[in-house]
Amino acid sequence: MQETEISTLGEFGLIERLTEGITLQNKSSLCGVGDDCAVLNYGDKCTLVTTDLLLEGIHFDLTYVPLRHLGYKAVVVNLSDIYAMNGTPRQITVSLGISRRFTVEHISELYAGMRMACERYGVDLVGGDTSASVTGLIISITALGDVDRDKIVYRNGARDTDLVCVSGDLGAAYMGLQLLEREREAGAGEKDFQPDFAGREYILERQLKPEARRDVIDEMRSLGITPTAMMDVSDGLSSELLHICKASGVGCRVFEDRIPIDYQTAIMAEELNMNLVTAAMNGGEDYELLFTVPLAQHELVSQMKTVRLIGHITKPELGAVLVSRDDAELPIRAQGWNAFQQ
Amino acid sequence: MQETEISTLGEFGLIERLTEGITLQNKSSLCGVGDDCAVLNYGDKCTLVTTDLLLEGIHFDLTYVPLRHLGYKAVVVNLSDIYAMNGTPRQITVSLGISRRFTVEHISELYAGMRMACERYGVDLVGGDTSASVTGLIISITALGDVDRDKIVYRNGARDTDLVCVSGDLGAAYMGLQLLEREREAGAGEKDFQPDFAGREYILERQLKPEARRDVIDEMRSLGITPTAMMDVSDGLSSELLHICKASGVGCRVFEDRIPIDYQTAIMAEELNMNLVTAAMNGGEDYELLFTVPLAQHELVSQMKTVRLIGHITKPELGAVLVSRDDAELPIRAQGWNAFQQ
Repeated sequence: MQETEISTLGEFGLIERLTEGITLQNKSSLCGVGDDCAVLNYGDKCTLVTTDLLLEGIHFDLTYVPLRHLGYKAVVVNLSDIYAMNGTPRQITVSLGISRRFTVEHISELYAGMRMACERYGVDLVGGDTSASVTGLIISITALGDVDRDKIVYRNGARDTDLVCVSGDLGAAYMGLQLLEREREAGAGEKDFQPDFAGREYILERQLKPEARRDVIDEMRSLGITPTAMMDVSDGLSSELLHICKASGVGCRVFEDRIPIDYQTAIMAEELNMNLVTAAMNGGEDYELLFTVPLAQHELVSQMKTVRLIGHITKPELGAVLVSRDDAELPIRAQGWNAFQQ
Repeated sequence: MQETEISTLGEFGLIERLTEGITLQNKSSLCGVGDDCAVLNYGDKCTLVTTDLLLEGIHFDLTYVPLRHLGYKAVVVNLSDIYAMNGTPRQITVSLGISRRFTVEHISELYAGMRMACERYGVDLVGGDTSASVTGLIISITALGDVDRDKIVYRNGARDTDLVCVSGDLGAAYMGLQLLEREREAGAGEKDFQPDFAGREYILERQLKPEARRDVIDEMRSLGITPTAMMDVSDGLSSELLHICKASGVGCRVFEDRIPIDYQTAIMAEELNMNLVTAAMNGGEDYELLFTVPLAQHELVSQMKTVRLIGHITKPELGAVLVSRDDAELPIRAQGWNAFQQ
């Protein structure tokens, strides 16, 4: 790969290179990169705003994450938050802190992944900030979207007897990470080490190139389902269930044997001698949608192909409970990822 | 000062501590911190979005910048971009990357400065992200504001014969930085070193606690002035003049003897044997407003107390020119701050 030092272009030159050929796709994007601010117009809709900070050495490890995948994922995890409010993502801003070891080509790879995600989800890149950093790569993304005011789904709307639903399957991204870390350790110091990922493609893809569940939101709209509460599963199912219970002032009962788990996830957990249910409940980075619907929508929600009913909402005094396969009731605790405890 | 390790609170505990007692001031802030996204409603107005990444060791040095000032400045520089589009800032999101040497009390200080700026400018803190970092403090702020679509002022509207105006004075923040760096070097290794800042309060304040020129925007509105082009001066007057000329497809003539400079700035430059005009043209971090108005508004703009006419817009083939005191014409070059060239 050609190697061009970023200092040869400077900040404005780099931005020009990276944003070359970007055309705005959304009617609401009036003005993108190139002024003091981006200008948006959502008409009478509400604006959704979410932001994520991704740091090398904390959130990602470039020894096994390709820059293009990282760019894609960095965008998708923000879009996931917009969908989790029942909105449609429209714009992102991207700020980068770049240390000296990165070349123009590196950052172009990262940007290519970001632009791929933007294209796939119909989102415009409308601004950002680019700077040198002392060490490592810093990615800060803010996503904006729109939603009708009466269609917004907060965390606090879950009510007693509501059904608890989750899309896709859980724990795969976490097991993908375990696999990547194992292979990195196995390959440390060996020059021509080739990690063996055969038959593990799914869990790797879940870790390296997750998707936001736009399809689930679309399906709910076409079926006329509006959830009473919704979140995306980023820190882990346990953590998100507790958020919904706390915000809504309710409890929940979730059944272990209803938690959707892919067979690759199960095999990897077995191989690494890890508890599968713990991985599915606390692994995080699933970017699936966790939501609640009124009991009366049982039939409707059962029609959704990728959605599984995993339990129901209860009175607050019953707490948040996981019912195990042998009918034991275990209190749900957030063991999700915490950057401040290492 | 009490010292509480951040790991004792965890991410959610820290966020709760920092956002305690935040009440939303703007009608457009429907939902702030605590869900997947913030929810805003600007009615039929346009949304302005701007973002800035501030990195320890690149943009600030905590050996002489108090955390409270840093927080204040980090917010203000973003609000300045909203005013520079003729908008009103309404919300910010704040993402922080925090290394192990920072305690809960440190981050509370930083946040106190941010909240002070929010209060002063009537802005709501509606979201963010908080994470550990490997080294140093990372601050990423996104500001949102609103503006009537027909009142937006871009960079590209300057026309031949327009007047070039700038608010306040230039170069002071840069000379404040030079002073701080000199005193840091003088005090290095000396335990009880007391830097001497007497008579230098203005340039220090311009560096450590800049303000955004809301007052200038307000005054223009009340006088019925809508600039044809506008920017805030963050990288330096030269750099911003070139941006306006390039975006508008025009040239400009700016007169050295019209550039507003405070006497403290002049004294400091003398003392440090630095070129005063270079400092004023290229120092940056002034956060003043640079704007152009039609020639017909000469009388109106002359009424503005803190605004100085510094030149006029010309045909593009005449280029961007600084006319020196002895009538020499010097081409304006961007020597503004560039993080990638050190």
